[in-house]
Amino acid sequence: MTKSRAISPAGPPPTFSADLHLELHGPGLRAGLIQALRDAIRTGRLPSGTRLPSSRQLAGDLGMARNTVADAYAELVAEGWLVGRQGSGTRVASRIEPRKARPAAAPARPARRHPRYRLLPGTPDLAEFPRKQWLAAARRALNTAPNDALGYGDALGRLELRTALADYLGRVRGVYTAPERIVICAGFHHGLTLMAQVLKARRVRAMAVESYGLDLHRDLLNNAGLRIPAVHVDERGARTDELSELRGIGAVLLTPAHQYPTGVALSPDRRVAAIDWARQSGGLILEDDYDGEFRYDRQPVGALQGLDPERVVYFGTASKALAPGLRLAWMALPEELIPDVAAAKLHADLLSSALEQLTLAEFIASGAYDHHVRSMRTRYRRRRDQLVATLAQRAPHVRVTGLAAGLQAVLELPRGTERSVVRAAALQGMEVSGITPFRYAGDAPSRLPEQDALVVNYAAPSDSAWSGALEALCNVMPQKVPS
Amino acid sequence: MTKSRAISPAGPPPTFSADLHLELHGPGLRAGLIQALRDAIRTGRLPSGTRLPSSRQLAGDLGMARNTVADAYAELVAEGWLVGRQGSGTRVASRIEPRKARPAAAPARPARRHPRYRLLPGTPDLAEFPRKQWLAAARRALNTAPNDALGYGDALGRLELRTALADYLGRVRGVYTAPERIVICAGFHHGLTLMAQVLKARRVRAMAVESYGLDLHRDLLNNAGLRIPAVHVDERGARTDELSELRGIGAVLLTPAHQYPTGVALSPDRRVAAIDWARQSGGLILEDDYDGEFRYDRQPVGALQGLDPERVVYFGTASKALAPGLRLAWMALPEELIPDVAAAKLHADLLSSALEQLTLAEFIASGAYDHHVRSMRTRYRRRRDQLVATLAQRAPHVRVTGLAAGLQAVLELPRGTERSVVRAAALQGMEVSGITPFRYAGDAPSRLPEQDALVVNYAAPSDSAWSGALEALCNVMPQKVPS
Repeated sequence: MTKSRAISPAGPPPTFSADLHLELHGPGLRAGLIQALRDAIRTGRLPSGTRLPSSRQLAGDLGMARNTVADAYAELVAEGWLVGRQGSGTRVASRIEPRKARPAAAPARPARRHPRYRLLPGTPDLAEFPRKQWLAAARRALNTAPNDALGYGDALGRLELRTALADYLGRVRGVYTAPERIVICAGFHHGLTLMAQVLKARRVRAMAVESYGLDLHRDLLNNAGLRIPAVHVDERGARTDELSELRGIGAVLLTPAHQYPTGVALSPDRRVAAIDWARQSGGLILEDDYDGEFRYDRQPVGALQGLDPERVVYFGTASKALAPGLRLAWMALPEELIPDVAAAKLHADLLSSALEQLTLAEFIASGAYDHHVRSMRTRYRRRRDQLVATLAQRAPHVRVTGLAAGLQAVLELPRGTERSVVRAAALQGMEVSGITPFRYAGDAPSRLPEQDALVVNYAAPSDSAWSGALEALCNVMPQKVPS
Repeated sequence: MTKSRAISPAGPPPTFSADLHLELHGPGLRAGLIQALRDAIRTGRLPSGTRLPSSRQLAGDLGMARNTVADAYAELVAEGWLVGRQGSGTRVASRIEPRKARPAAAPARPARRHPRYRLLPGTPDLAEFPRKQWLAAARRALNTAPNDALGYGDALGRLELRTALADYLGRVRGVYTAPERIVICAGFHHGLTLMAQVLKARRVRAMAVESYGLDLHRDLLNNAGLRIPAVHVDERGARTDELSELRGIGAVLLTPAHQYPTGVALSPDRRVAAIDWARQSGGLILEDDYDGEFRYDRQPVGALQGLDPERVVYFGTASKALAPGLRLAWMALPEELIPDVAAAKLHADLLSSALEQLTLAEFIASGAYDHHVRSMRTRYRRRRDQLVATLAQRAPHVRVTGLAAGLQAVLELPRGTERSVVRAAALQGMEVSGITPFRYAGDAPSRLPEQDALVVNYAAPSDSAWSGALEALCNVMPQKVPS
């Protein structure tokens, strides 16, 4: 019996070694033989039941040591590809049906044209990520981390980071907290998911949201089983005086420092009204302080949380001040919530990289975080001023609002032009969003104003892309329509 | 009117500046004044309605510029602490009730004595984490990452890492996949959570699990709403021949390479039986390949997934080969599952740090991962041999099993001694687990054997702690009981 007949009794005699495209030299002989045999079985070239040549014979044909072939056979038997029985030699396992093709790639996602200018809200200027300083912080963190830090770790997050954050948030945002009250999470979305779980378990059935915000967050809350009535947003922020009129709400999600995406700050009386509502109703305020550090005309307004740390859950994130890719955010919790949140987080077992946490701790403690925020604030303020000045000249009928803080501005458009402007921008290779997707009426759709507008993230483009982006933006502004 | 009477009309006149412990020099004057006023209001030292001195007066008393004080007042008004009205000066907001105490620390968790020896299963030797090489990979990753990598990113994970893993898993574990089929997750637990969601949405009601395993995983599946009958584990691994007898199961969770925690490898016929069951029933196999790289007596047995990539979801992790603290794991998916898993992951928005993903990609591509695994395999094999040799001498009646692979061994104990041995170990400062917590009977509790045993993670101690740990382990072994 020749080897080829033994391997493929039904077909024309193949040359075994050539057939397998074996790499016949180098240290990977055994692995190569195993791989080749697996492939031959998988693709059906060696059908079920095929009897293989003896290890001695194949070794001779391939110029390999017999042990190498015997080892390969033994491994493939252990893996279930082959069966070896006393007396009947080694055969391809009878029940393994061949798979025809190589695993196909996932269905290709529609190839999107890479946009030239990205002005969608949500992302800071990633070109300015302080790579060198971050790496230096990573080096210091890795050099000093205890071995324990590399283990499964504390569900609440590394104490080093929680300590650095307690200090930073107190100093910069007026947050009144302690390391034991801070919980690290993998982004705001993760923190909000945890809080929704905790609130549901506490029999909260509804959480008010602002009438402008991210549908992603509304979906999350809806999917968690919460009803989400809306409080209206006007030029002084969310109408927290409406909270006491809403039936059965146990919490409210607010963006006090800089309403998202309209950019207005919550007025002092409404801050107090929110706290009063929480105290009188026993409700909780979820404060999404996503970009509180970026306030241009004066010092940042401190977090609402400072007014009552027992009734406000404060959420902060590294996504705007540094980069979303870090997936690091934090909550400062009322004391009574800590056990519930810790349990929910432990149960979910979704932690953030310990090394990344330690690096951020080091980055904050060294002052690099403050330095980066200051430097970006200057840069973003300059961009904002350029945006306002350029639009004043090129499109003086477009009113620009939401300018005191944050990474984006709202450009109010003539009625009925929002969709066509977004479309015209897309044709110019510019990604920019209208304000409509952010609008949410809850149960009272009739009460919403219908101002057409663009939400323009002037922070996102790199410095080199900025002037082109600004020019392209001016080009798609509608001509003045006499009203 | 003196300043002290204005601030605290009811009490004895305090010296304002001393009272506030203000830092009266340096650049932080304004921030210090704001912080001091917040604290004074929060603690009730400045009660609601208290009228503050004019900014001119306070500035004079404190030796500050009047603008600094006016700015501080304005900020506190914006934040809701103070109210300022024309003609009536600046007062503490009437509705802000004081909070008595500083935020207390979270209820202290029970102070656990730091154990001298940790032999609980699940963690590798963290002292050997290749810090230097990891940092070098992080540097290369950071130096070459595109700016986009720092953004919100691809829900499936960075393509760089998925590409490196597709190559590595094919080469080392016989996994048949492609980058488009790999999904990065934040640990096995996260991946299993995603799969449970996907299976539930596909109307799967039950998933079989092995009769030995982690209760954490069983809890997760139960909480996801899945029924979890058990397949028995014996000395040839899980009895996959039982799968076809179980009613209505749509999936099975297996540890084929190295049953957890008993340490046996799934026998060839049972591998094939599992695949046959999946093909005939349309069910899925979830292959938890948590430590497949650590096989000592021969080359690693390739993943079950290779036998049928369309019916097996392969799970791997960096937790055993590198460190759990990285929170990086991966799944290789059947093609038909990719859209569902992608949607579930996108919805959850729980991504891993992009920098950590890129660093691991770089670490694998540079060969450092292979090198580390090889080096740890040698180290763990030496430990294992020392464990076996030492026990053979000091406790010859203790049978040691599960030795061919992995980070732990099973020490079979005389009947009725498991609990007392675990307790005796704890008294010696040694954390070690009995096998009982891993045992799970599903619906058929009567069929489980009751072998007393310890699960000993010989990989976890550092080299310096190992000989002491081994000695302590020998000291708690029960004396031979004549049976």
